[in-house]
Amino acid sequence: MNPETAVAPKASATPPGGQRVTARVREILSWYGSDNPGTKANIARLLNHGALAGTGKLVILPVDQGFEHGPARSFASNPAAYDPRFHFELAVEAGCNAYAAPLGFLEAGAAEFAGEIPLILKANNHDVLHDEKDPLSAVTGSVHEALRLGCAAIGFTIYPGSANATRMYEQIQAIAEAAKKNGLAVVVWSYPRGSGLSKEGETGIDVVAYAAHIAAQLGAHVLKVKLPTAHIEQEEARKAYENNAIPIATLADRVRHVVQSSFDGRRIVIFSGGAKKDKDEEILNEARAIRDGGGFGSIIGRNSFQRNKPEALKLLRNIIAIYSGAAR
Amino acid sequence: MNPETAVAPKASATPPGGQRVTARVREILSWYGSDNPGTKANIARLLNHGALAGTGKLVILPVDQGFEHGPARSFASNPAAYDPRFHFELAVEAGCNAYAAPLGFLEAGAAEFAGEIPLILKANNHDVLHDEKDPLSAVTGSVHEALRLGCAAIGFTIYPGSANATRMYEQIQAIAEAAKKNGLAVVVWSYPRGSGLSKEGETGIDVVAYAAHIAAQLGAHVLKVKLPTAHIEQEEARKAYENNAIPIATLADRVRHVVQSSFDGRRIVIFSGGAKKDKDEEILNEARAIRDGGGFGSIIGRNSFQRNKPEALKLLRNIIAIYSGAAR
Amino acid sequence: MNPETAVAPKASATPPGGQRVTARVREILSWYGSDNPGTKANIARLLNHGALAGTGKLVILPVDQGFEHGPARSFASNPAAYDPRFHFELAVEAGCNAYAAPLGFLEAGAAEFAGEIPLILKANNHDVLHDEKDPLSAVTGSVHEALRLGCAAIGFTIYPGSANATRMYEQIQAIAEAAKKNGLAVVVWSYPRGSGLSKEGETGIDVVAYAAHIAAQLGAHVLKVKLPTAHIEQEEARKAYENNAIPIATLADRVRHVVQSSFDGRRIVIFSGGAKKDKDEEILNEARAIRDGGGFGSIIGRNSFQRNKPEALKLLRNIIAIYSGAAR
Amino acid sequence: MNPETAVAPKASATPPGGQRVTARVREILSWYGSDNPGTKANIARLLNHGALAGTGKLVILPVDQGFEHGPARSFASNPAAYDPRFHFELAVEAGCNAYAAPLGFLEAGAAEFAGEIPLILKANNHDVLHDEKDPLSAVTGSVHEALRLGCAAIGFTIYPGSANATRMYEQIQAIAEAAKKNGLAVVVWSYPRGSGLSKEGETGIDVVAYAAHIAAQLGAHVLKVKLPTAHIEQEEARKAYENNAIPIATLADRVRHVVQSSFDGRRIVIFSGGAKKDKDEEILNEARAIRDGGGFGSIIGRNSFQRNKPEALKLLRNIIAIYSGAAR
Amino acid sequence: MNPETAVAPKASATPPGGQRVTARVREILSWYGSDNPGTKANIARLLNHGALAGTGKLVILPVDQGFEHGPARSFASNPAAYDPRFHFELAVEAGCNAYAAPLGFLEAGAAEFAGEIPLILKANNHDVLHDEKDPLSAVTGSVHEALRLGCAAIGFTIYPGSANATRMYEQIQAIAEAAKKNGLAVVVWSYPRGSGLSKEGETGIDVVAYAAHIAAQLGAHVLKVKLPTAHIEQEEARKAYENNAIPIATLADRVRHVVQSSFDGRRIVIFSGGAKKDKDEEILNEARAIRDGGGFGSIIGRNSFQRNKPEALKLLRNIIAIYSGAAR
Repeated sequence: MNPETAVAPKASATPPGGQRVTARVREILSWYGSDNPGTKANIARLLNHGALAGTGKLVILPVDQGFEHGPARSFASNPAAYDPRFHFELAVEAGCNAYAAPLGFLEAGAAEFAGEIPLILKANNHDVLHDEKDPLSAVTGSVHEALRLGCAAIGFTIYPGSANATRMYEQIQAIAEAAKKNGLAVVVWSYPRGSGLSKEGETGIDVVAYAAHIAAQLGAHVLKVKLPTAHIEQEEARKAYENNAIPIATLADRVRHVVQSSFDGRRIVIFSGGAKKDKDEEILNEARAIRDGGGFGSIIGRNSFQRNKPEALKLLRNIIAIYSGAAR
Repeated sequence: MNPETAVAPKASATPPGGQRVTARVREILSWYGSDNPGTKANIARLLNHGALAGTGKLVILPVDQGFEHGPARSFASNPAAYDPRFHFELAVEAGCNAYAAPLGFLEAGAAEFAGEIPLILKANNHDVLHDEKDPLSAVTGSVHEALRLGCAAIGFTIYPGSANATRMYEQIQAIAEAAKKNGLAVVVWSYPRGSGLSKEGETGIDVVAYAAHIAAQLGAHVLKVKLPTAHIEQEEARKAYENNAIPIATLADRVRHVVQSSFDGRRIVIFSGGAKKDKDEEILNEARAIRDGGGFGSIIGRNSFQRNKPEALKLLRNIIAIYSGAAR
Repeated sequence: MNPETAVAPKASATPPGGQRVTARVREILSWYGSDNPGTKANIARLLNHGALAGTGKLVILPVDQGFEHGPARSFASNPAAYDPRFHFELAVEAGCNAYAAPLGFLEAGAAEFAGEIPLILKANNHDVLHDEKDPLSAVTGSVHEALRLGCAAIGFTIYPGSANATRMYEQIQAIAEAAKKNGLAVVVWSYPRGSGLSKEGETGIDVVAYAAHIAAQLGAHVLKVKLPTAHIEQEEARKAYENNAIPIATLADRVRHVVQSSFDGRRIVIFSGGAKKDKDEEILNEARAIRDGGGFGSIIGRNSFQRNKPEALKLLRNIIAIYSGAAR
Repeated sequence: MNPETAVAPKASATPPGGQRVTARVREILSWYGSDNPGTKANIARLLNHGALAGTGKLVILPVDQGFEHGPARSFASNPAAYDPRFHFELAVEAGCNAYAAPLGFLEAGAAEFAGEIPLILKANNHDVLHDEKDPLSAVTGSVHEALRLGCAAIGFTIYPGSANATRMYEQIQAIAEAAKKNGLAVVVWSYPRGSGLSKEGETGIDVVAYAAHIAAQLGAHVLKVKLPTAHIEQEEARKAYENNAIPIATLADRVRHVVQSSFDGRRIVIFSGGAKKDKDEEILNEARAIRDGGGFGSIIGRNSFQRNKPEALKLLRNIIAIYSGAAR
Repeated sequence: MNPETAVAPKASATPPGGQRVTARVREILSWYGSDNPGTKANIARLLNHGALAGTGKLVILPVDQGFEHGPARSFASNPAAYDPRFHFELAVEAGCNAYAAPLGFLEAGAAEFAGEIPLILKANNHDVLHDEKDPLSAVTGSVHEALRLGCAAIGFTIYPGSANATRMYEQIQAIAEAAKKNGLAVVVWSYPRGSGLSKEGETGIDVVAYAAHIAAQLGAHVLKVKLPTAHIEQEEARKAYENNAIPIATLADRVRHVVQSSFDGRRIVIFSGGAKKDKDEEILNEARAIRDGGGFGSIIGRNSFQRNKPEALKLLRNIIAIYSGAAR
């Protein structure tokens, strides 16, 4: 239970040019005891890269916005971001733990930036040129492609609440099995949507906690959800919240509940920043709540790459400082 | 026909540190003559573990509730249960025969508890974020994953009565074939639901007996159904019950009929406890009826892990005592 | 054309403990010239077993009733039949040519009765817990399972007239191809049903003859249909019957037409007894009509196993006597 | 462009018992330059067999009528035709180039008639026991089965105009790819039908020419269409016919347009005779129009096997005489 | 960033009979750093063939019109075009970079014209004999077939905006992965259509830019879209265009925006000419706008092959002159 007392080498023992995992990373890796060394090593790669290396916290840059919302809506406010190399550079320079993107964006930089930052292949994607009540992402990548491009992990979105959820669960089952066989880590975006839910319900605390739990049960090593509101969507769940007086009043409370719902904190849970915010302070407050609630970090897309690089770097570094303890 | 008279070694012949199967287990294994030694050994592992080892009776702890109903509804009343290790410990300490759970929950303890209790990978799952008239569980595990995690068996749910039943039957056909090739046992949860049935019909005696028979015909080694009521759902079946005066008045009668419908008792049939009961006596009375009707045991989920460990252990041990003959 | 004049050994040449195929069986095997020796040997196994061995006639015991209608409707009138071993024993003792059942029932006796009777794995099945206009059986077995259990043949049901017929035809194409590669025989149950047909049309002479022809074209070695009535379902077919004065007045006439429709008698066509009859004489009259019309035998399920064993044996032996020529 | 001037051996050089391809066959084979020698040899087998051997013309006997319309409608007018051997004999004796039939009919004679006539396995089939607006044939054969039975080619029907056309195009893509890998020829029946077309439109000249072109683009070596009428179905096509004054007044004109639409005559296009005609002269006139329009021959089913063998032989020989130049 | 200063050999170093890639082609190839040498070589083949070899510009001849619209509508205005060899010759003689066509058209010339022009197998196709709101092309080719025919690339159409888009994205994922493994280049036609879009929206600037971006994210090396109008289809996108003042007034502006949306110009984007134009000047003006906007070239089908060869050659050479700089 207390891996820090194990015979782990002291920091001073770090070999020249080498890197020893910290006690915290060692503890986190202990939660993934069923995985093979290849997968453990790739989880460690995510945890040991960038400004937060070794802290057990993560800030990941995801850029699938071009596919999901279209290029102009995604990049016109910062035209440098049309170039796929911008995002590799931003992630590297900001000290992010990893960069996640669809096949095309990774192909356009994986060789040039090889070895500079862990990559996550976002293996399914969705666009908004066709509207549907029950969303389904198309599988646009594969474990083979992730291995070819030198990725540390494969990423996959599920939409619990969609009539198509069964299909997505079965797709991630097959992909996660192949990823684990091949020593990759598995990152699941779990975004409740679809005819089973009201719009408000998509971010209701019961629904987000449920979505996190499903992703963990599907075998995700890292799972990503939206920050939840205090709304409760399902009547059967309301009783559980009220009878057991689960604290959900503050954002930190709710983060804590989501982390607890993810195998009592024994899975890495990160949170997305959502739509572009007007004020940085809002974003930083969210990061503080994630930190205070025991969350493992943020995945910051639109709020970073939709501004010019100096401003994006400034924001990302401020967020990182919150997680690293360099700032409050 | 009488395996007890075979040249089985006497109990006194048990080697140091070893374990010989009892005559009853030997008899039960004789029902599975078509299976290879690997599968027979895994059926034996289920029968030879825990407080009921060797009796031919089983009490299994299943924890797929988090996936099926959400984490707060499942674990908030006993927050220790958010931690996947709680369930391994509960199953081991209570002397259960096996622990059954979805992929994620097993991954989160299979290495730490390796060798301490037989595991059953629940290979398909269903959530309630999207409602449907004709339920279909998503395949969330595989025979390969079960082998990787050191499981003794693969578990699978079918919903006879659903418009999606054909799909689930074909999925279990493929999974069971692969499981048997690889020496695993097959456990089928057979829960009638869907547009073919009334709500009351889901637990009607004709329907439950039919569901048990289907699971046995699909090649299940162990099959699990809900405790049936005296309701008869199908008019064509009513004649069979009335003309042949099949006794269904008491719960023990109905258990006996379900066991008879499962190859005349030559398949292991266990019964689920259903929703959380207010009084333990209700649960114990159900166990008595299962025992008296010739059932092989119970699968007790919500009624165990939704209370704190001492209380859960007390209940499980009381149930086990009924099956072992230590209590009435 | 006259295989009897070939240099086949005389009956007196039968070696000790051996069995030579009769001229009639040799003739029948000649119809299957495209099959490999393994498949021919398994067709011969069906023809050379039991009381009708060598006559070219067959009586087969099928027991998929438990899956198709439920256990109580199938077995309550003769509770011994809940035990899967009952059916093996009945088929062996009655001198049937083969026993056909779903996976579970075969698994429950294949080892114990190995070598005592040719087995047919009924590889798809249907239940009545969900009603549908256009039936589709679920694939519940496979060629691999048939080989594992030592079967001589694989059995498969198609429902011509169902909107799902295309799917079933494609399933049997794949299964039959695999069966023939592996030396198994293929038995097709061809039961017209579905939205393309009236209830009366399901057994209309034009429809049954058509269903038999489809099964033969799909590559069945043995095909099984229901006894047809004189009803004509399709107007386009009526002209063919009337203009060409096809005799369909008597049951023997209609059997003859179905046999003719099955490659002019060069495929083995057997007929099912249908629902349980009150009087044995009805069943025996049907057998006489099948014999007189040139049919190859009967497949007798409910009318045999739904009575106690002595009565079932008596009936089956009376039917066999009609086919063997021992009785009229 | 002029293969006759190549260094092909003179007719006098034909070795004893051997067969050299004629200049015309050599020219036709030159159109299939992308195919491997195995496939070229099988196209040559089709062109070099029977009374029209070496002429570049073909008359093929197809017998899938029993599957498509039922046995009585197909064979009652000539009961000898119930026997699958009848059709092998008819095709051989009439001097046809090939015999095409579903799996069952070929299995019932492929061994007995091995080497006597090139066979085409009709690998998908359709029946009329279930009516549908958008037809879809079931895949009832495979390249493996065609190879096992010694076939020269695989045959496949597509229904352009059906909502299910995409599925059939994708099926023939896979089957044709496998056939070509294994040295088989590919024959496509292209029959426009379905909710995209009026009844009259199914044989409209624009539609038939389009259907022929699609089959050629799908990679067919030999393609078969119905004889077109002068009806034009699609308004966008009408302009093309009128503005370019494409001659479609006579049947020969329309045949010529269909041949032109099939890669300007560089694919073998044959035409079906359609429903049984009352007068032979009608059929012979169709053959004359096919010949005059540059068509490659006929596929004659119902008009041949639905009469007794002497009459069928007479008709087929008369048709052959038209193509061979022995008659006008 | 400036590959021209790399140690690339001078033009004078070109060996006898050999070909060195120009600095511009070397730069373009540098965008595809994740691809294996086989794929890079095939991209180079496309760029190094014909009158525009080495310039980084492309003019491609596509002829799938016969499949898409029917033979008469496609070829009657220039009957020589019925012959598949016409298009090979036209592409070679005009100095096009490549010729793209469905399986049948390529099979009909790939051997005869082997080595004369890079080929692109158009691996899915659509016809208009069945109308649908949400189009889906049938997969009619494969990577294996492209390799067999000696192609440099595989071509595939997606219809963003169609309810069937997910299926097409998943098909191209699998095909592109196989193509890249085997050293082929991938060309994606991205044509917005379907119930998600208005007719005008299919060529709206936001939609075309989005479609280009999706194709790039799916891993296309070369992508082809229609020339966009100034229409904006999606309200959410309108804000991005207005707030960021994206110039879309002229065709060159819009081409520039599409190129920018395609990884900031780091993917080869070509534009289609659309329906046959009355005046050549219109077509040439489009080419000028493509050139001025930074597009990589044109794919010219109907406007070339629907006229006789001298006129088609004249037009294609005029277009090529615009791209080569020989004309304004």
